[in-house]
Amino acid sequence: MEENITEVITNLVFQMAVIIFAVRVFGKLAAKVGIPSVLGELIAGIVIGPFALGGIPFPGFPHGLFGVENSIAGAVSPELYAFGQIASIILLFSSGLETDLSLFLKYSVSGGIIGLGGVVVSFIFGDICALWILPMLGADCSGFMDIKCLFFGIMSTATSVGITARILSDKKKMDSPEGVTILASAVFDDVLGIVLLAIVMGIVAALGTGGTLSGGKIGLIALKAFGVWLVATVVFIAISKKIAKFVRLFGGTYDFSIAALGVAFLLAGFFEKQSIAMIIGAYTTGLALSGTDIAPVIEERIHGLYKFFVPLFFAVTGMSVDVSHLFTRDVLVCGGIYTVVAVVSKLIGCGGPALALGFNIKGGFRIGAGMIPRGEVALIIAGIGLAAKGPDGLPIIGPELFNVVILMTLVTTLIAPPILNISLSIKGRGTKKEVSLSESQQFIWDFKDFEIARLVLDSFIRDLRAESFYVQTMNMDEGLTHARKENISISIQQDGSVLTIEAAQADMGFVKGEIYEVMLRLNKSLATLGSLRNTDKLQYGFASPENRVEKLAYKILDEKCISCSLKGNTKQEIIEELSAMLSNSGCVTDGKLLVADMKARDEAMSTGIGKGIAIPHARTDGVSEICVAIGIKKDGIDFGSLDGLPSRIFVMIASPASKSGPQMRVMAALTGALSKDDVRSGILAAETPAQVMEQLKGACR
Amino acid sequence: MEENITEVITNLVFQMAVIIFAVRVFGKLAAKVGIPSVLGELIAGIVIGPFALGGIPFPGFPHGLFGVENSIAGAVSPELYAFGQIASIILLFSSGLETDLSLFLKYSVSGGIIGLGGVVVSFIFGDICALWILPMLGADCSGFMDIKCLFFGIMSTATSVGITARILSDKKKMDSPEGVTILASAVFDDVLGIVLLAIVMGIVAALGTGGTLSGGKIGLIALKAFGVWLVATVVFIAISKKIAKFVRLFGGTYDFSIAALGVAFLLAGFFEKQSIAMIIGAYTTGLALSGTDIAPVIEERIHGLYKFFVPLFFAVTGMSVDVSHLFTRDVLVCGGIYTVVAVVSKLIGCGGPALALGFNIKGGFRIGAGMIPRGEVALIIAGIGLAAKGPDGLPIIGPELFNVVILMTLVTTLIAPPILNISLSIKGRGTKKEVSLSESQQFIWDFKDFEIARLVLDSFIRDLRAESFYVQTMNMDEGLTHARKENISISIQQDGSVLTIEAAQADMGFVKGEIYEVMLRLNKSLATLGSLRNTDKLQYGFASPENRVEKLAYKILDEKCISCSLKGNTKQEIIEELSAMLSNSGCVTDGKLLVADMKARDEAMSTGIGKGIAIPHARTDGVSEICVAIGIKKDGIDFGSLDGLPSRIFVMIASPASKSGPQMRVMAALTGALSKDDVRSGILAAETPAQVMEQLKGACR
Repeated sequence: MEENITEVITNLVFQMAVIIFAVRVFGKLAAKVGIPSVLGELIAGIVIGPFALGGIPFPGFPHGLFGVENSIAGAVSPELYAFGQIASIILLFSSGLETDLSLFLKYSVSGGIIGLGGVVVSFIFGDICALWILPMLGADCSGFMDIKCLFFGIMSTATSVGITARILSDKKKMDSPEGVTILASAVFDDVLGIVLLAIVMGIVAALGTGGTLSGGKIGLIALKAFGVWLVATVVFIAISKKIAKFVRLFGGTYDFSIAALGVAFLLAGFFEKQSIAMIIGAYTTGLALSGTDIAPVIEERIHGLYKFFVPLFFAVTGMSVDVSHLFTRDVLVCGGIYTVVAVVSKLIGCGGPALALGFNIKGGFRIGAGMIPRGEVALIIAGIGLAAKGPDGLPIIGPELFNVVILMTLVTTLIAPPILNISLSIKGRGTKKEVSLSESQQFIWDFKDFEIARLVLDSFIRDLRAESFYVQTMNMDEGLTHARKENISISIQQDGSVLTIEAAQADMGFVKGEIYEVMLRLNKSLATLGSLRNTDKLQYGFASPENRVEKLAYKILDEKCISCSLKGNTKQEIIEELSAMLSNSGCVTDGKLLVADMKARDEAMSTGIGKGIAIPHARTDGVSEICVAIGIKKDGIDFGSLDGLPSRIFVMIASPASKSGPQMRVMAALTGALSKDDVRSGILAAETPAQVMEQLKGACR
Repeated sequence: MEENITEVITNLVFQMAVIIFAVRVFGKLAAKVGIPSVLGELIAGIVIGPFALGGIPFPGFPHGLFGVENSIAGAVSPELYAFGQIASIILLFSSGLETDLSLFLKYSVSGGIIGLGGVVVSFIFGDICALWILPMLGADCSGFMDIKCLFFGIMSTATSVGITARILSDKKKMDSPEGVTILASAVFDDVLGIVLLAIVMGIVAALGTGGTLSGGKIGLIALKAFGVWLVATVVFIAISKKIAKFVRLFGGTYDFSIAALGVAFLLAGFFEKQSIAMIIGAYTTGLALSGTDIAPVIEERIHGLYKFFVPLFFAVTGMSVDVSHLFTRDVLVCGGIYTVVAVVSKLIGCGGPALALGFNIKGGFRIGAGMIPRGEVALIIAGIGLAAKGPDGLPIIGPELFNVVILMTLVTTLIAPPILNISLSIKGRGTKKEVSLSESQQFIWDFKDFEIARLVLDSFIRDLRAESFYVQTMNMDEGLTHARKENISISIQQDGSVLTIEAAQADMGFVKGEIYEVMLRLNKSLATLGSLRNTDKLQYGFASPENRVEKLAYKILDEKCISCSLKGNTKQEIIEELSAMLSNSGCVTDGKLLVADMKARDEAMSTGIGKGIAIPHARTDGVSEICVAIGIKKDGIDFGSLDGLPSRIFVMIASPASKSGPQMRVMAALTGALSKDDVRSGILAAETPAQVMEQLKGACR
């Protein structure tokens, strides 16, 4: 097929645009109905893919937006496929990076046994299941060691623990013995899945050379693949600090994070050349770096790349699903059988060992249920099977088999949450004996004041940096921060005035000492702040005729809130009178609170800013929206202005304390307008609210 | 050529890994010798490309790492080319996003005239130059309207102002009339270059249809291309707030930033379908969004993508350079001529109008010199010319012509800095009359204390957020923050205890008012902190036998700094004695300061932590490295411990104030060890420093 590169690129650009929007729409819809957004992205790919909407021709796209003819990459163009493949490397690199190696090592007994149980049982059951269902789909299979059956075994192993972790977290069961065990087992599950994949890829490579192979020879080749993985992993973990040091040579945090990704690319390419899947190399690199202190930095810095690429991968995977073959009787029956087997095998494979390890039947059920969801790794392996050719020269996983896997992934993920929820709602603990597995301690302190909590937090974080910790803001909105240095891990959460610090018990002494020092130092520093209070430099410098006079200045002002002849003769009376006028705006919810807050603000420092102007103002919960009242007292009263002159024009600005809004901008605009001599004298001469309004509008022109 | 998709992807992965490392190495080298890293990345591409190192075959890569046979994408594989093209969209989207539209509008007269002058003169001179040099390179050209000549005209127009901006900033000339004019003109230069490109692409499309075209018909088609650009730009700017609102629907900051990029992809694809270059659509989208308040957020969120993709683009561009044809006599001569023309045309085209606009000859020279460097846009357009076919069915820009453009880009960028430096070193102002073009004001305040400056800064930023500003940390290391809301732009820099706030004069009132409110509020909040001082919860909670006892605890301890029989009988004497012992470690640089800081810390709150232990400690400039001294006073003295008991074991920890180091971790480890009853009694019974050391080592096991 003759192709024009410009056309290829134009199509790619349109495709990427559509994918970017579609995955987000479907991802959000999925999240809304409570399933992982990954599934939404997969479904987005199915819907917009070449076998569905994307295959419909329209002007400019004779094969549809995603339709291709004779692509070497199957259903999609090689270029789009390449983006998907790069995405899978980034995905697995991130997975490796997030792996908690210390958790892996700490729970190597219980997590290892349960993880291994789940993987082995799933693999064997999945393989045997394939022996049963493959003939129903018209596919040959020669026995347990048939490459198709091996793939079905392996695709059934990898648990996607993300959704389980969210449910555990929602139900506050993350720290329960079952929760900790599930998370630790999932790490093993990941690693064992990767090992199995390496072995199976070794077998694929061996079969690809043609000829019949004895079981012994296959075993030998599988052993070689396992050996390559093991050596690479051990070596990379051993030199992980050196790798970290090496990538740091490449400059700033963005550059060294991308350089780390470059290392993952290198190892991925190397693994592929050894006929072991690329993603294993990417995962191994991430795993090795996960123990270094640059891991959280890399995670943060490549997050944008992750968000760009990874949904692309799931969409491209979904595009290989031929919908016309998805809802056939055979695929549905076989998919159903494969799903049941996948569910049962985790319940037995993980639940069984859990019983032997001191959990009761309830606990075993919970652990098994938590391990049910399959996800990204199954999809990636299915994609590898789709691209790799078996000994018969056909793809190992043909389109129908691919659909069966997609169904299994979708259904296990959909049914896992309800099963897990049911298992968790059964009262009572899941262990035979009382165990205290919780290793981390929480230190909670209510500082009574948001500002102070924030101040302590900031200083604490700065000190952690001074102690060479890597500090990462995990979630700006939720005020979650994470600090890490070698094997010390501290998480800090600010919730209003309350600071919660979580760390291993062994590090709590350090945390407390550090906080104590922060408090002492702040006390000392703050003593000096008082002396800055009366600095003239700032005071009322903000009322300048140069100020940007925005339409804001009169837009939120209601004529009903303007009075040209105030009655009050004292500061107190004026504030009360203006507050009462504000009620006309309909925004005042608590008049007393409003007056109290206005007075408190004025007591802190007089709001008489000179030139005959006073601007009593406050952020207060006494109003629901920002509102302004203007009053004129032609005789003037003493409002405590710095220039000693009486104040004649009073502008009250109240804005809600708990809501964002332009209080200071309004104030700057109004004082800016009032700083102009002509506007001020015009307002003083005004007889009606409408005239005052006119003057302000004039100032905005 | 039969290809295997797995092999294609494996090659791609290796290629991307090598590019990731090579561009960073060459980029850093370039920066080191003072040329923009973009050029380093371009040269990296040339060096590792298929015509140089990347073409050398080695096992596994029969055509070399980057070598391809018969690629539809020229020198590189279509997949790698696709990554480069996506990169160019991201690059131009970012350029558009960074464009200061308000600057564009504010200086529409002077900037417009000078920018237009530069573009027109460069275009005409470049085109005429091509008429002269193309025959020397054996290329046909039919006259001024020949498509090759038009490309040479257009490639000569686009100034890359990055390097000029850096030099102006280094020499603090950014705010000079010349500096402001250069930056404003560069915006016009960008936009006009894009317009010209649209027109030329229209002509390319028209020629592509074959047949001869009258000048009038070409003009009509060019007008159509210009019309499409103009309409798209005006519409997108008009609905920019709606676009911003639309993309925000896609969720968090990462998601909506990528959705914005998706819009750029869409418009890019649309432009390409209209036979106008993709990058114009990307630039237009960025330009429209640059005026919205999500612009800085998008810039930050896609920065990782930018850092990943953009160097890839320059490397891929470099790979099209056939080095064997770069240093031929013809290419060097023609490149030299084209370069001289490019330099002269900016000096005349920008310097001339500058003279007419009130600058003297010095100022005109400075402005012209500042506009000399060409860069990314020239490279992108050359790439388009390399991919697009002319009426003769051959690439518009053949390999030799491509090399000429590369040479011009390299040389103009290399010679611009010295020329600009010379022009700036000539004393005297560059305008005929005194003008005050500086629109922004600085507000500098020394808070005398880093903590307080930081506190004010944090509260100020929080208030800006409450006023619905978008706040972005531009450079963590340099403490530079930028806040933006509609047309208000505030930059905040913390340098130690000094806070510098820069804003338009019209917004200074707002800034000052806000800072003033912050001060008032902090004063109030801080009054409560004092009352938290004596909270028992924290005090000495950090001395726990559970503490992680790291080897740190004794590793930095020198036996020479241990005494088993302190002489002092008062707190003062003990502190002086321990400080003197610390000198044995060789880390003490100012003994008096050390003692003073230790005393100050102890006065803030006694360091007697109970159980007979006291840990006088401080961060002090009296030491160069962290150091520890341990002293034992068997009789014990009153150290003001909370438990009222005498202190017998004294641990002094001093660490440099201005250096990162594990002070608190050492303290936690040491107090952890001492909290164990057996260790404490062992140390109390010790007769020699070696025995004390032995006890501490024992505690670490």
